[in-house]
Amino acid sequence: MTRKLLLLYFSFILISSASFAADTLSSDGEDGYKLWLKYEPVTEPSIKAEYLKYVAFISESDHGEIMHNAVQELQTGLKSLLGKNISVSKAVENKSGGIVLRLDPKADTKQQEGYRIQLTAGNIVVSSKSENGILYGTFALLRHMQMQLSVKNLKMESSPKIRYRMLNHWDNPDGTIERGYAGSSLWKWYELPERVDPRYQDYARANASVGINGTVLNNVNASARFMSQEYIVKVAAVAKVMRRYGIKTYLSVYFAAPKTLGGLQTSDPLDPKVRAWWKEKVAQIYKEIPDFGGFLVKANSEGEPGPQDYGRTHADGANMLAEAFQPYEGVVIWRAFVYKADPNADRFKAAYEEFVPLDGKFDPKVIVQVKNGPIDFQPREPFSPLFGNMPKTPLGVEFQLTQEYLGFATHAVYEAPIFKENLDSDTYVNGKGSTVAKVVDGSLQGYMRTLMAGVANIGNARNWTGHPLAQANWYAFGRLSWDHTLSSEQIAKEWTELTLTRNKKAQENIVGLMLRSREIYVDYNTPLGLSRPWMGVHFAPEPWQNKGSRPDWTAVYYHRADSAGLGFDRTASGSNALAQYRPEVRQQWNDPDKTPLPYLLWFHHVGWNKKLSSGRTLWEELCTHFYTGADSVVWMQQQWDLAKPALDSQVYTDVAERLKIQRREAVWWRDAWVLYLQTFAKKPIPKGFEPPKQTLEEVKKSVNIYLMK
Amino acid sequence: MTRKLLLLYFSFILISSASFAADTLSSDGEDGYKLWLKYEPVTEPSIKAEYLKYVAFISESDHGEIMHNAVQELQTGLKSLLGKNISVSKAVENKSGGIVLRLDPKADTKQQEGYRIQLTAGNIVVSSKSENGILYGTFALLRHMQMQLSVKNLKMESSPKIRYRMLNHWDNPDGTIERGYAGSSLWKWYELPERVDPRYQDYARANASVGINGTVLNNVNASARFMSQEYIVKVAAVAKVMRRYGIKTYLSVYFAAPKTLGGLQTSDPLDPKVRAWWKEKVAQIYKEIPDFGGFLVKANSEGEPGPQDYGRTHADGANMLAEAFQPYEGVVIWRAFVYKADPNADRFKAAYEEFVPLDGKFDPKVIVQVKNGPIDFQPREPFSPLFGNMPKTPLGVEFQLTQEYLGFATHAVYEAPIFKENLDSDTYVNGKGSTVAKVVDGSLQGYMRTLMAGVANIGNARNWTGHPLAQANWYAFGRLSWDHTLSSEQIAKEWTELTLTRNKKAQENIVGLMLRSREIYVDYNTPLGLSRPWMGVHFAPEPWQNKGSRPDWTAVYYHRADSAGLGFDRTASGSNALAQYRPEVRQQWNDPDKTPLPYLLWFHHVGWNKKLSSGRTLWEELCTHFYTGADSVVWMQQQWDLAKPALDSQVYTDVAERLKIQRREAVWWRDAWVLYLQTFAKKPIPKGFEPPKQTLEEVKKSVNIYLMK
Repeated sequence: MTRKLLLLYFSFILISSASFAADTLSSDGEDGYKLWLKYEPVTEPSIKAEYLKYVAFISESDHGEIMHNAVQELQTGLKSLLGKNISVSKAVENKSGGIVLRLDPKADTKQQEGYRIQLTAGNIVVSSKSENGILYGTFALLRHMQMQLSVKNLKMESSPKIRYRMLNHWDNPDGTIERGYAGSSLWKWYELPERVDPRYQDYARANASVGINGTVLNNVNASARFMSQEYIVKVAAVAKVMRRYGIKTYLSVYFAAPKTLGGLQTSDPLDPKVRAWWKEKVAQIYKEIPDFGGFLVKANSEGEPGPQDYGRTHADGANMLAEAFQPYEGVVIWRAFVYKADPNADRFKAAYEEFVPLDGKFDPKVIVQVKNGPIDFQPREPFSPLFGNMPKTPLGVEFQLTQEYLGFATHAVYEAPIFKENLDSDTYVNGKGSTVAKVVDGSLQGYMRTLMAGVANIGNARNWTGHPLAQANWYAFGRLSWDHTLSSEQIAKEWTELTLTRNKKAQENIVGLMLRSREIYVDYNTPLGLSRPWMGVHFAPEPWQNKGSRPDWTAVYYHRADSAGLGFDRTASGSNALAQYRPEVRQQWNDPDKTPLPYLLWFHHVGWNKKLSSGRTLWEELCTHFYTGADSVVWMQQQWDLAKPALDSQVYTDVAERLKIQRREAVWWRDAWVLYLQTFAKKPIPKGFEPPKQTLEEVKKSVNIYLMK
Repeated sequence: MTRKLLLLYFSFILISSASFAADTLSSDGEDGYKLWLKYEPVTEPSIKAEYLKYVAFISESDHGEIMHNAVQELQTGLKSLLGKNISVSKAVENKSGGIVLRLDPKADTKQQEGYRIQLTAGNIVVSSKSENGILYGTFALLRHMQMQLSVKNLKMESSPKIRYRMLNHWDNPDGTIERGYAGSSLWKWYELPERVDPRYQDYARANASVGINGTVLNNVNASARFMSQEYIVKVAAVAKVMRRYGIKTYLSVYFAAPKTLGGLQTSDPLDPKVRAWWKEKVAQIYKEIPDFGGFLVKANSEGEPGPQDYGRTHADGANMLAEAFQPYEGVVIWRAFVYKADPNADRFKAAYEEFVPLDGKFDPKVIVQVKNGPIDFQPREPFSPLFGNMPKTPLGVEFQLTQEYLGFATHAVYEAPIFKENLDSDTYVNGKGSTVAKVVDGSLQGYMRTLMAGVANIGNARNWTGHPLAQANWYAFGRLSWDHTLSSEQIAKEWTELTLTRNKKAQENIVGLMLRSREIYVDYNTPLGLSRPWMGVHFAPEPWQNKGSRPDWTAVYYHRADSAGLGFDRTASGSNALAQYRPEVRQQWNDPDKTPLPYLLWFHHVGWNKKLSSGRTLWEELCTHFYTGADSVVWMQQQWDLAKPALDSQVYTDVAERLKIQRREAVWWRDAWVLYLQTFAKKPIPKGFEPPKQTLEEVKKSVNIYLMK
């Protein structure tokens, strides 16, 4: 059967399934704004009957704004799920048949922010030690009901494994977003503080619903203006909205602000005037924002100023800021994303080399934020060797949700497998089972302050993320920051059910597509451990790029293609970056014959004719990935089409059109790579694969278009 | 009575008016997306009864997509206005009681795009020579009905006075908008051509509804990439949507594209290879976009390349492009916004000096697009001396809708008075009554091709324009491009009725506010003929700015404040720019004693103590404007509050919050100006005005925040 016929056949089966259309979530005009909080009416009669036993009242003791919002969310949710207006009751002694939100210092939860949900005396009781916990429990209950799960034996207890669960917005004061592909910034600085966009609240709701409790509003390449009183009051107006949903507001800071904004002669962190300036600045911020979260700092990184400008260390810089936070709850989050322009160095090793010697020298209020991998959010990276190697310094992990290296907003890449692959990596620092997750959640090395950060993929696009499926990455990040033991599949199922469709067959198609999407992207983009084929814009293929203001700002620096082979030798015969890992890890990756293929070229320069464990030569294996990767996008299109009858038409069309783009661009990537690498490998395209229809020069020309001003 | 009491009093009157709440347009959740096409149900029973006589059918002869969209719009509109589903009928002989759309080559209209609406044989008949005209007539009929006007003696005939009625989008390929304050670009280049955002259609509808028939999609500071086949097919996908609403698509071009994109050695317009390249390029575009509108060119202006790079003239450059368009309908629109970095020159004179000598040398396919004033979209400018002085060259006028110099998206400035002031200015080139409007509409000098362009104020903000009231500027531009004889007041009334409220009293408050808003802005921003107090960003006051890479990129160049006085002498004793105008115009502005105060400092350096026609000294007069301007914003707030009960709550709040910002910033502007000018005038703030609470240094510091990266 041709593909077309096959599709027709499947479509017929689907359309003939009577229950299908009724399962479609979201009525016409669905534009994605509501995210996973759609609260579509419950359709299972028996389940609805169960739920209707608990709609007599919602009870809350008289507490603060967060609790109030939990009640409101319940009212909104149940109204929509069950069609019932439920009133709030303060006194509930001896009453049953309702939902009780119980703030209780003695609630049986592991963490302050944890919640417990269970049936007690004929009521559904959500209890927590904190208002935040009540809110999280409320969202968990609503999620449960959106999925039409029974409440007969309702009993849920959950506590976050990470304390600081936060988004990083790389949003500039002019409304642009660095590496943003979903419109412009949510934060309208020219309107604040007087005008508070109602959308801020919807943002806060969405975050709280997945457990996120912090947000850094501005780009790590920070403007000093955020430290001015004018901007502090603007930030305070946003923080006020966030606070009501248990979210703390943070700011990225420009390290040289004491000079540029404060008018001091220096920003040297050991200068008493500089220290005093920051102290006063932090005090000024707390005056406006009593629950201010803290600072995020990118220093001495990619041209940003920092303590090294004055011969000081990262610890000197971070500790100076930490000192300013002593009187307050706030923390200093210091990024480890550093690498120097050194033609003989291996950028892979830079963060380790700079930070490991500083272990133990940071103030307890400092958290060092480490990107998941050693380079920069590549489609696949080995875990950063910093994890586990700074036992005295809490290390947070930084993931990137926005698809800087994952096809912007037109490629479908479900990222939970990237996050999970990193978190489940074993560092072996305390023997087997010393996963990155255990480092980050503090259980391995006893960190007091634990952090998971995600670089947001959110803009003012009506559907928040541009690509409708990219909403799942926001969702997945939030869920994993709360509980990193959840599986990618479980999260994908949840999200699909809440957001797209209740039809089980369609869910299977979509979840299957999502789970394979990352590997498919890797296949046509950076298979076998290739990295950074981008330079100018991080969009078009440029593996040939060999001109840059510094060596590590070229593409050839990373793949090292030559007539002999391909890949970066990071063994002892090369940069020896592998020495930064424990022997058990080193052993996995040290021998080119034993290195798992997905990591091969990260660590080895491999000959074109080398036979790999797959039985194919390197050249054949590369071509196989590039070709099957691009072809797998057709499979994704097919899966999506199979789900069509169960989907809102607008969402269906949106994704279907983006998949068409993805298919075209996947072929572009494939052609760019194979034609370029062929100039070294000097081999024909393996049999069974149709050679590219274009020449290398033609591909380069098509790429150059994206490099024009 | 205190202001608060007064408000309370008025609120009482308003609330007690029983019909008020029912007049409120737009139900809750109104977010401005629908613009002036809300089609709220008709509430006047007698009017409704009239309309219901014509809902038996809609008739269309079998025509193209534009006609089809007119029918659809009628169906949608009448469904919403009257609650009736009206079916389409092809054969209507002897039928009555319906609406007939009649495409008729002999229709009695002045222009091809004109329409006629009248009662004939018991039907409402909309007739036109063109499908475009039918669409415009349909929107006119729907507007009539939205305003609940009688159709008893329905008879309307209207034809556009201008042929090319177009928006210019200064949108960059990365989605940013130069001088855009309403989010990011509507055009999603990374998604095109596969994905066609449904919003493109709503954009086209809105434009067609006010008569706009052209759109330039990309910034005049153009990227060469738009000339690549990759981007041409993207543009074609947008053009396809536009075409269905009678809108032609245009592109801004990068003059050096033959070199940068085409790989030629030169972009010299007299080089045969360059001419061939453009010919081929234009042919390539027409292959994809058969109704392509043409090119817009910014050349040898602010660093953009152009024909002068090769010792050629603007005419050489424009004519080369025009040659490429010979086989097609398309035109070349060449901007006259040029000025050289010359410390002794007056920028005011630059465009005239460069372009007047070229009159008669342009190909008939070229239209020269002239900004309304000689400098750059200042809050008030005299008309450009080019108007009337190039009788052999069609001159189009370029207005700016986006509020680059009008307070971004936070100040309410209704711009129709700016456009009208320009259009109604008398150039006297053919004697009294030789208005700019008559130059531009071709009636004075017989231009074949007439053009009115507006730099769009549209982005992906949900309400399109950021400030809800800025929608009125888009609306007003469209209406004036169709018929420049409409008054600002008439347009404001229409827009307010269609968009905000049907309540007459509230309309009066709002229209009053709108009509005064521009003068209020001028008062606190650039009174008495001041200009360009901005430099770095065009947001914060910087009248003291005296450092720039060229003299005309400083603020002091424009206002020339010194110990003697203030203003730019453009009489014979100064730059003599006035000599570019006809004697009758010169006479109006030549004598400082007779120059109307709004233009005084445009043409004269006036002593601080000089008594003006107002009876006040210059210093007193300046202060009076700055203070009363800032205070008038309070009056605007009051007017808006009076209308509150008749407004949707979300829209009310949005504007109310923006007015608060405007008030704060108006005081900021006032303080910046008076404190700065005081350093020259050495005079106290006149009695009755409270001196600024801040020092000049403090104001400068608050401004510097906006100049930080």
